Amino acid sequence: MEFIKPVEWKDNTLYVLNQLKLPMITEYNPKQTAEDVFHAIRDMELRGAPLIGIAAGYGMYLGIKDMGDTDHESFMKKMKQKGEMLAKARPTASNLFRAIERMTQRAEDLKAEPVETKKRLLELEAIKIQREEVEINLRIGENFLTLLKDGMTILTHCNAGCLATVDYGTATSPVYLAKERGWNIRVYADETRPYLQGARLTAYELSMAGIDVTLICDNMAGMVMSQGKIDAVIVGTDRVAANGDIANKIGTMSVAILASHFNIPFYIAAPSTTVDINTRTGRDIPIEERNTDEVTNWYGRRIAPEEIKVYNPAFDVTHHELITAIVTDKGIIYPPFCENIKKIFG
Amino acid sequence: MEFIKPVEWKDNTLYVLNQLKLPMITEYNPKQTAEDVFHAIRDMELRGAPLIGIAAGYGMYLGIKDMGDTDHESFMKKMKQKGEMLAKARPTASNLFRAIERMTQRAEDLKAEPVETKKRLLELEAIKIQREEVEINLRIGENFLTLLKDGMTILTHCNAGCLATVDYGTATSPVYLAKERGWNIRVYADETRPYLQGARLTAYELSMAGIDVTLICDNMAGMVMSQGKIDAVIVGTDRVAANGDIANKIGTMSVAILASHFNIPFYIAAPSTTVDINTRTGRDIPIEERNTDEVTNWYGRRIAPEEIKVYNPAFDVTHHELITAIVTDKGIIYPPFCENIKKIFG
Repeated sequence: MEFIKPVEWKDNTLYVLNQLKLPMITEYNPKQTAEDVFHAIRDMELRGAPLIGIAAGYGMYLGIKDMGDTDHESFMKKMKQKGEMLAKARPTASNLFRAIERMTQRAEDLKAEPVETKKRLLELEAIKIQREEVEINLRIGENFLTLLKDGMTILTHCNAGCLATVDYGTATSPVYLAKERGWNIRVYADETRPYLQGARLTAYELSMAGIDVTLICDNMAGMVMSQGKIDAVIVGTDRVAANGDIANKIGTMSVAILASHFNIPFYIAAPSTTVDINTRTGRDIPIEERNTDEVTNWYGRRIAPEEIKVYNPAFDVTHHELITAIVTDKGIIYPPFCENIKKIFG
Repeated sequence: MEFIKPVEWKDNTLYVLNQLKLPMITEYNPKQTAEDVFHAIRDMELRGAPLIGIAAGYGMYLGIKDMGDTDHESFMKKMKQKGEMLAKARPTASNLFRAIERMTQRAEDLKAEPVETKKRLLELEAIKIQREEVEINLRIGENFLTLLKDGMTILTHCNAGCLATVDYGTATSPVYLAKERGWNIRVYADETRPYLQGARLTAYELSMAGIDVTLICDNMAGMVMSQGKIDAVIVGTDRVAANGDIANKIGTMSVAILASHFNIPFYIAAPSTTVDINTRTGRDIPIEERNTDEVTNWYGRRIAPEEIKVYNPAFDVTHHELITAIVTDKGIIYPPFCENIKKIFG
């Protein structure tokens, strides 16, 4: 299967597909500094927890690639500076912090190497983060296929597809894999206000891949569930807490409550990189609130009265009791999550 | 309290506030024929079950106002023709059919009168339908106030305010009445995709009236409920079935399921005109599906891939078990609804 590439690494430059302009315009913007990458993440040119992690890896490398010959201490000081800056781009995704830590740790491990070697190996580390995500996605997809059957219809929220990571995606991985096997899996995609990642990205990438996808507004998910059209819900996640609570795009919790009401299995596609056993419960996950303009304006056109009060949380937390299973690259985790997450990730 | 007027009847013309252009543009368009009124309803220049009923009353009058001197049979034939045409404008709202029937019955009762008298009395009947809605709304508001308290926060979906009927509105009636009494009632308004009646109309009319209103996307309702911010949900309805199932704007059912999950009372504001005991259950209510462009386009700007499949039901049915009480102008109806609706409306 041919996938759309959300980033490309070439000649010391990260080319970022500007997801804000999809599906109508395909535009790759070059990022040549850690600061460029920070803005791309914060302003949502790229998004999706795994992809944010990948971009942060390259961002860390870009932050030190022009350093002249220097001692290890100065090198590490610069790494840490860039890491602190990048960590502020989005507070909810654990992949961001994980990639920063991984790059910093790798630099530390290279203490004895000359600066040029450090730089070369850090570039390779960033590339490795990206490559590992592909493998992770494939394993998530394979694990999911043991839970699904040919002919099923999946509902998904937001975008946890090839545009949120690389290649197979997380929540979409079983759908793409099923397609490769000749299964017929249909998808309903919530449009996912306010940024419309479902309409602009999920519906786009799935239809490009020839998958039968139907777009609905977020408030129609209950309706299609009530009509018996949905066999399972699969969503991605930005962070899995130690007790199985998960943070994901705003609206995920509501979909989980609806699925529970209609007795529809509710599955989380969770790469290992999103599992954070240092976060005890969902209450400990900081929820990013974003600019109110995202709700009141639509491509420059105002759709709400001037000066109206708006609440715009970017994520919500789904309580672990609403989750049927968390499907990771390291296996499928069932309740009791506290115990079973510890077995694999403890 | 000064209310925005969604329609004005003047000089044999129905001036309709074009709600598609709110809140940015205030434009009244004159309707001089039954066909004009049909288009205004179908194309959603005006919307809201009670307001559709009001407009249909005037539409019926406009349909016969230019008839010359004729026998009763020809007069009634024309009335019925116009009624059949108008009935096709929106299939879900019972107010539409009720207003058409009422005007037709009134014409029948005027059998003995000369044509000019018939016409004059039919105009008065249409005006009476409008006046009665104001009284109905006030009574609904008064009944609601017995269920609410100063300081509460209400969540509402879509628009069942002064723009969906006249003056106090149905779901908003207790909010306006509370304001007049000096109570402090706050409101969260779901934006209500795809037409954004919550963002464009509810947030607009409440903020114009000085009420503390916060706009959220539909998928954030669960989040604010989980945070303990909501004391009660109040929504309008397009039709109440004999068993207490209700049809209302798409997304209402989901809000009801969320409210039930978080143990928040879920109230229906239902003018008598929406109660239809000839509709046995929610399954018997036809659900209008609207054009897919409403989901994929925004003021001419495409927000989803070309040729994507879309499902766009305009309404959903909320099962009576999810409803705490149906508040009508004739009293508050509690479960068991089948029995208690029959007591008042049987």
